[in-house]
Amino acid sequence: MNGYAMNKKDLQDRLRRIEGQVRGLHRMVDEDAYCIDILTQLSSASAALRAVGMGLLDGHVRHCVAESIEQGKGDAKIEELMAAVARLAK
Amino acid sequence: MNGYAMNKKDLQDRLRRIEGQVRGLHRMVDEDAYCIDILTQLSSASAALRAVGMGLLDGHVRHCVAESIEQGKGDAKIEELMAAVARLAK
Amino acid sequence: MNGYAMNKKDLQDRLRRIEGQVRGLHRMVDEDAYCIDILTQLSSASAALRAVGMGLLDGHVRHCVAESIEQGKGDAKIEELMAAVARLAK
Amino acid sequence: MNGYAMNKKDLQDRLRRIEGQVRGLHRMVDEDAYCIDILTQLSSASAALRAVGMGLLDGHVRHCVAESIEQGKGDAKIEELMAAVARLAK
Repeated sequence: MNGYAMNKKDLQDRLRRIEGQVRGLHRMVDEDAYCIDILTQLSSASAALRAVGMGLLDGHVRHCVAESIEQGKGDAKIEELMAAVARLAK
Repeated sequence: MNGYAMNKKDLQDRLRRIEGQVRGLHRMVDEDAYCIDILTQLSSASAALRAVGMGLLDGHVRHCVAESIEQGKGDAKIEELMAAVARLAK
Repeated sequence: MNGYAMNKKDLQDRLRRIEGQVRGLHRMVDEDAYCIDILTQLSSASAALRAVGMGLLDGHVRHCVAESIEQGKGDAKIEELMAAVARLAK
Repeated sequence: MNGYAMNKKDLQDRLRRIEGQVRGLHRMVDEDAYCIDILTQLSSASAALRAVGMGLLDGHVRHCVAESIEQGKGDAKIEELMAAVARLAK
């Protein structure tokens, strides 16, 4: 089971919405929208993407990482987790 | 003229690619991919989006902001710019 | 004249406060404070540091960059500015 | 025991160095250094602070969080952890 299994539907809805936001950015560029308006939209898509990342991380820690620790083999999972946090925090 | 007019094609190609990356994230969730693999893809889409933002910002400063300053009315544009930078840097 | 000349005192007060926060972090580690409490303090120092950076950036654009543009030699300044924004936004 | 107990000395050295960097920023402002040079130093202090945060987080997960999970009471610790990650990732 995946860490995000329980809210898979919510995750997909959010990703679908972000995909629409990125498509919207493309359209704004196409229609020569004002740079700052595009940047505002872009920051909003970027924040939404990060929120999805935090949600995935949360589920991953609660399930995959916690399980591995319970089975006494958490080290590799924690290593992997911290690398993912570092990439996300950049 | 927009600040990004000169590399509009490049901008649109990059946004198209990011849209594909987000769609790929959706597919990964659909296929129950491993959380960390999804997070890696997500961090990559997020970095690509930020890079587009930096590109837009660059063009905006070089054109719109510079022009306003040359015309002696840069204050409002700089105010607006700094707010956009703050949103992007978050 | 520097871009931050007008609020130099405010800038220095804020940096002094951040220095105190970092010293406080050192003390917390020394006294074996709880990791999460240290992290909370660290995030606060980090946000304060970024706020100072945004303030410096603001003054820099309003003064140094705007002046250079008015004198018709803004290109190098804008190049330099965007590199600083990129480092700060990381 | 704290999660960072094993590298307390290293942590303190790094915090000491960051404190010096912030004091250096104060001095640069005092001596009217060029905005961009101050910003470069500030970005470096900011990255060093974030690196300390990641190190603290790592130790916290490996020790405090892992222990709580092994004792079957990981939920609150994970909740707390995710909030700290969110603050740090901002």
